[in-house]
Amino acid sequence: MSTQDRFFIDRLAIVGVGLIGGSLALALKEAGCVGEVTGIGRGLPNLNLALELGVVDKITRELEEGVQQADVVFLATPVMTIPDLARRVLPAMKPGAILTDGGSVKGEIVERIEPYLSGEVAFVPGHPIAGTEKSGAAAAFPTLYRDRRCILTPTERTPAAATALIRRMWETVGSEVVVMDVDKHDRILAAISHLPHMIAYTLVNAVGSYDHFEENILEYSAGGFRDFTRIASSDPAMWRDIALSNRQALLEMLERYENFLGELKRDIAAADGQKLFEFFLNSKTLRDAIL
Amino acid sequence: MSTQDRFFIDRLAIVGVGLIGGSLALALKEAGCVGEVTGIGRGLPNLNLALELGVVDKITRELEEGVQQADVVFLATPVMTIPDLARRVLPAMKPGAILTDGGSVKGEIVERIEPYLSGEVAFVPGHPIAGTEKSGAAAAFPTLYRDRRCILTPTERTPAAATALIRRMWETVGSEVVVMDVDKHDRILAAISHLPHMIAYTLVNAVGSYDHFEENILEYSAGGFRDFTRIASSDPAMWRDIALSNRQALLEMLERYENFLGELKRDIAAADGQKLFEFFLNSKTLRDAIL
Repeated sequence: MSTQDRFFIDRLAIVGVGLIGGSLALALKEAGCVGEVTGIGRGLPNLNLALELGVVDKITRELEEGVQQADVVFLATPVMTIPDLARRVLPAMKPGAILTDGGSVKGEIVERIEPYLSGEVAFVPGHPIAGTEKSGAAAAFPTLYRDRRCILTPTERTPAAATALIRRMWETVGSEVVVMDVDKHDRILAAISHLPHMIAYTLVNAVGSYDHFEENILEYSAGGFRDFTRIASSDPAMWRDIALSNRQALLEMLERYENFLGELKRDIAAADGQKLFEFFLNSKTLRDAIL
Repeated sequence: MSTQDRFFIDRLAIVGVGLIGGSLALALKEAGCVGEVTGIGRGLPNLNLALELGVVDKITRELEEGVQQADVVFLATPVMTIPDLARRVLPAMKPGAILTDGGSVKGEIVERIEPYLSGEVAFVPGHPIAGTEKSGAAAAFPTLYRDRRCILTPTERTPAAATALIRRMWETVGSEVVVMDVDKHDRILAAISHLPHMIAYTLVNAVGSYDHFEENILEYSAGGFRDFTRIASSDPAMWRDIALSNRQALLEMLERYENFLGELKRDIAAADGQKLFEFFLNSKTLRDAIL
């Protein structure tokens, strides 16, 4: 594995060969920056498909065996499973190798993995902000990470060289890498991703419950409502895990949101046109600035 | 004006020749179902443009004069202006003519217009559920209403023949017409349109305020957040007016929504994975059913 001139990973192990893990493998292969890719998973049908599609070069269901030779191990499984997998993987990895992950919440993962670090294997917590509604090896494609952000949250226990190598890996597949504090990552994600999902789920439940004693209100939903609530169709198990893993930051954002909602409600109840106009205008100004 | 076999409006007056009014004129012209269309407005540049583009056949800034000969008058101006315009228009209209509107809130409009009905002119409250982000005569296009819903909310003061004619008018331009109670209309719109706008405005303000002491959180917003908050870029004055006009139904929906949000927050705080899963699953099930 050379970190100097040309970026190359001799042996890469992907734990969880789905959209996230499979797309990284495909992108690195396409860039000619990886030697052998081992796909590790529980389900044989998906592993066989990954092999058949050329997403990976070898497959195994044996976690410890699969990571032994790897220079880089990428954990691309659901966020709740990452700490336990890391604990099993770390003692099996070779000295000097790097463990990284793609979990969308970082605080809990770091907290639960760091006690198990021996110093021989580096851990670089990561979060490529990319995805589609699809999953499984068949959903993987090499351009998933192009022009997307990837956040790395190294701690004081992460060797700088390991962070540099993982940064180069994500840059190689086209991402803009941002390095930040674990807590900041979790607050940002709570604000721009986790809170919106909570809001969409809540809106659909609230309108749906109304429907129970009125007549088919949801039936009247036009394109706007359908677009707005699209994210409420996301995987409930995944979002349960995210909500649990990022509880603290999410509760803080929810409280802030509730306060603004309360303000808006009071302004509507008071029929305060001037305050409503300012509330909406301020939001429009902020929103237009990120267009 | 024949309501029997072939549908035809001899003289139509459109008050407010923008996207909504202009598109109705264009669609009826394209269908060959209208004789002369008079465009009425305050701004000469927009009226001249409407004339030039063939959206209308005549233009005037004199409201009472413009509606005198009309068989049907369509008020397509901002929701707050409709009652006052109706009060001025009604005495000027000829006996047997029909007044209708496109306001997105119906209760307040009906309440404020009905006392001024003399019995000689019928009023059919309506709401074509269509629109784009654009406005003005140049934004009008004949297929705006195709395959969209149009809600009519006749009251006991509305002659059935007048409702039937306005129904045919909207069907002629491709809409599916639904007739319902004024209150039901306002509750449905509060649920599927007004509440989502309030939520989007609130979300952007909450996240934006967080930004004031953190670093540029909105800058990290990926496509998902931008899509979800798109409606927070809507016209603040229009939404102030809608929030004020539909206050009661909107407050009711906001309260319901707040209750669900409180439940979700409690489940997150209690780390109740089972309840969170059920909350998200219920929402996904409801949402997938309206796909």
